[in-house]
Amino acid sequence: MNRSMIRYVLGHVLKIEGALLLLPCLIAVFYCEKEGLYYLAVAAICLLLGYLMTHKKPKSNVFYMKEGCVATTLSWVALSFFGCLPFWFSREIPSFTDALFETISGFTTTGASILSDVEALSHAALLWRSFTHWIGGMGVLVFLLAIIPMSGGSHINLMRAESPGPSVGKLVPKMKSSARILYMIYLGMTVLEFILLLAGKMPIFDALCTSFGTAGTGGFGIKNDSFGTYSPYLQWVVTIFMILFGVNFNAYYFILFRQIKRALHMEEVRYYFLVIFASTAIIFISLLQDAMHIADALRHSAFQVASIITTTGFSTADFDLWSQTSKTVLVLLMFIGACAGSTGGGIKVSRIVILLKTVKKELNSYLHPKIIKKINFEEKPVEHEVVRAVNVYFITFVLLFSASVFLVSIEGRDLVTNFTAVAATINNIGPGLALVGPTQNFGLFSPFSKYVLMFDMLAGRLELFPILILFHPGILREFFPKKVKRVEKNRKKEKQSSRRR
Amino acid sequence: MNRSMIRYVLGHVLKIEGALLLLPCLIAVFYCEKEGLYYLAVAAICLLLGYLMTHKKPKSNVFYMKEGCVATTLSWVALSFFGCLPFWFSREIPSFTDALFETISGFTTTGASILSDVEALSHAALLWRSFTHWIGGMGVLVFLLAIIPMSGGSHINLMRAESPGPSVGKLVPKMKSSARILYMIYLGMTVLEFILLLAGKMPIFDALCTSFGTAGTGGFGIKNDSFGTYSPYLQWVVTIFMILFGVNFNAYYFILFRQIKRALHMEEVRYYFLVIFASTAIIFISLLQDAMHIADALRHSAFQVASIITTTGFSTADFDLWSQTSKTVLVLLMFIGACAGSTGGGIKVSRIVILLKTVKKELNSYLHPKIIKKINFEEKPVEHEVVRAVNVYFITFVLLFSASVFLVSIEGRDLVTNFTAVAATINNIGPGLALVGPTQNFGLFSPFSKYVLMFDMLAGRLELFPILILFHPGILREFFPKKVKRVEKNRKKEKQSSRRR
Repeated sequence: MNRSMIRYVLGHVLKIEGALLLLPCLIAVFYCEKEGLYYLAVAAICLLLGYLMTHKKPKSNVFYMKEGCVATTLSWVALSFFGCLPFWFSREIPSFTDALFETISGFTTTGASILSDVEALSHAALLWRSFTHWIGGMGVLVFLLAIIPMSGGSHINLMRAESPGPSVGKLVPKMKSSARILYMIYLGMTVLEFILLLAGKMPIFDALCTSFGTAGTGGFGIKNDSFGTYSPYLQWVVTIFMILFGVNFNAYYFILFRQIKRALHMEEVRYYFLVIFASTAIIFISLLQDAMHIADALRHSAFQVASIITTTGFSTADFDLWSQTSKTVLVLLMFIGACAGSTGGGIKVSRIVILLKTVKKELNSYLHPKIIKKINFEEKPVEHEVVRAVNVYFITFVLLFSASVFLVSIEGRDLVTNFTAVAATINNIGPGLALVGPTQNFGLFSPFSKYVLMFDMLAGRLELFPILILFHPGILREFFPKKVKRVEKNRKKEKQSSRRR
Repeated sequence: MNRSMIRYVLGHVLKIEGALLLLPCLIAVFYCEKEGLYYLAVAAICLLLGYLMTHKKPKSNVFYMKEGCVATTLSWVALSFFGCLPFWFSREIPSFTDALFETISGFTTTGASILSDVEALSHAALLWRSFTHWIGGMGVLVFLLAIIPMSGGSHINLMRAESPGPSVGKLVPKMKSSARILYMIYLGMTVLEFILLLAGKMPIFDALCTSFGTAGTGGFGIKNDSFGTYSPYLQWVVTIFMILFGVNFNAYYFILFRQIKRALHMEEVRYYFLVIFASTAIIFISLLQDAMHIADALRHSAFQVASIITTTGFSTADFDLWSQTSKTVLVLLMFIGACAGSTGGGIKVSRIVILLKTVKKELNSYLHPKIIKKINFEEKPVEHEVVRAVNVYFITFVLLFSASVFLVSIEGRDLVTNFTAVAATINNIGPGLALVGPTQNFGLFSPFSKYVLMFDMLAGRLELFPILILFHPGILREFFPKKVKRVEKNRKKEKQSSRRR
């Protein structure tokens, strides 16, 4: 393991975080809030640590998949750890566990909160919460790639570990240019939403936080009722931008380079819109049956479907009170998630499509056992290796999901709460149903469950393997060489003695 | 498609069903119940139809996988259709849908009932319900193989479609002998349980029905409170036999041929007992915390764990009232299921183990991308094809499960009811939680939901693909050549016109 390279990457990440923490400082100055000092202090710590860690360049550039995974996971943990300190130091969130939960929820663009009264927070804190969404949405390491010169295999391995979706398509031959283009599109669309929100007479601060939350498909609200009090125009703007940020960014790349036809032919994007359309229709009809006005029904159903499928998690209504059919549709959408290559979470539309095609292929093989056809996706045959990876991802997802539901259930809450709490965190959505519904929060859980859910949020954002691999004996051995060896020795001894018996 | 061969198999199945229907007739004679006449009448119909269908031997012996799947699925549908007629004719179950549900639930060894008062049924009906479990447990076609001479590829393709588990291991080189040995073990163990139950002073009729229900891991009770009123001794006997019938029958084969060491080293069986032990311990502790007496807590926890993991579905207590931790453990057990090659349902322990090993292998590949190791199971490397089949099975399972939950949710019941109703049927268990808990029944669902659940029961018992393939255009084309062609023509036209646009 190339530890000095990992240290180097971590140092850069901390330097970036230090710089980013200056934005809430500015806001605090503007609103004359003394909380700003804590942000400044933490920014200073990050910058100093970052400077120390990047002072010495690593000798070797060797950077394999495992280094990529470890560096990515540790970066996210470090980001979250230092990011939560201002909340904790300022006593705005008095418990460290809660502050960490809130920050991980922010960076992973989950938007699950432990706060019952967000309106009591300072402006600096509200902005930092929403800003973490924006940072986490596109990914910090992608940002790193865009600005810092690195060499070796580091680019592809870092980006692969952080980017959502089955496989990272290189937009342009140079990874660095890809990252830059992605960030340009991301920034451009955020600014566009900000302007459109301002046009709807939203206060500047609200518009800024909302744009950050939508762009990262995060979902932290700055009002206690999330998005319920804003005007229908503003709700529609956010609906549309949530959907847009859930689209595979390759589509925007194609549009940018005048390949509009190619963008319109993207299979994943088509299925994504199909699912949105069908789900909205079902919930719309269900709301009409509950005697809601037709315009309201359309707005609420479209907003909620967009919010859940893109894993944003804003809400305009308490959908926990809606019909069972609507709730079931929303729960299913939680798992489908947005497109790969977007800022959204979940399993991703492309994976679901590939899974369905795998089943179809299996049925074909019963009929014609001797004909072996490859699965086609986006008008190209999908490599066997990609199909395998998607299958394994799905299996790991379901197993991790089941284990998490079990662990959370130990404290004895009802099944719907546990099930949707895990679904809402592992898919990076935010609100679930019942006790974690849109009008509730995650504060009720014990610290143990909160740590389980934090793990799920990180696992969901990093697409499982980069974080799971940290628990692999082979990696543990490199970090705690003595302890693991002792455990392994004991295990060997046990095996031998059990054989003797 | 070799239709005449399928007709021939179906005819034999009907002849067997006709013969089996004579058992409830005998019981009716013994208890002087007029309902016996209906059983006799249906038996006569089956025998006549069976005779007509097997009168002409098929010209060709060609029998591929698709013929195996179609023949198996149609056999099960035919069995269920004719099996439900006595319930319906005798007005003991006045609705045809309900009668069919009850019979499919019987043959698939699910044990989910639509009856609120089973004690009101005639003895003939009670026996027939339990007897369907026994018939369905080992499978009708396996029985067919054991007694009827067939040739060509029919043996392996029929057995593969009906047997539970990832791959059919041939016990002995000749499939026919394998089937016979399996049935001998099955019969022997049933008789042993029957004797032990009689020794505990259970009435003969009750012992007979209970033995049938345990052996097939079915779960239809003959009392309204399932197994709650029986003595602790009887409950323990059933607990042990449920667990035994959930063991891979290969283990008994090894024991029968004095290869006890080999039986003890079976990896799947070891994991199976490990899961039973761990789950019982968790629920035992949870029941103790609820101030239950230690002996009762042990009995109830062991009984319920055995009942759910083997997918039998008997109950000694209303576990819907237990703690959330216990309920979550039981829900997870529903999906794990029994061993492959047993009479139990669910995903099967061996599949779960292979899935876990797949995830482990994936993590290894992140560390050592260039080392490709095969997964080991039962001390042998698992063929790539088997791993792939297990993965695809799991994916199909989850997708079918989600689709079913959605379809059932349309009637608007709560999520826990819908989720566990589908889990209890697709895994062939019986009771779920909430409105389909152990003291409730499935009568509350609409006919539409009942048909969805019937499909799930059959899909679960036949391991998904044999029944799903019936909906493949390639198969539909062979049965309804004109209609499918018309549909396909229309689709082509649509495609062309959409291209023109």
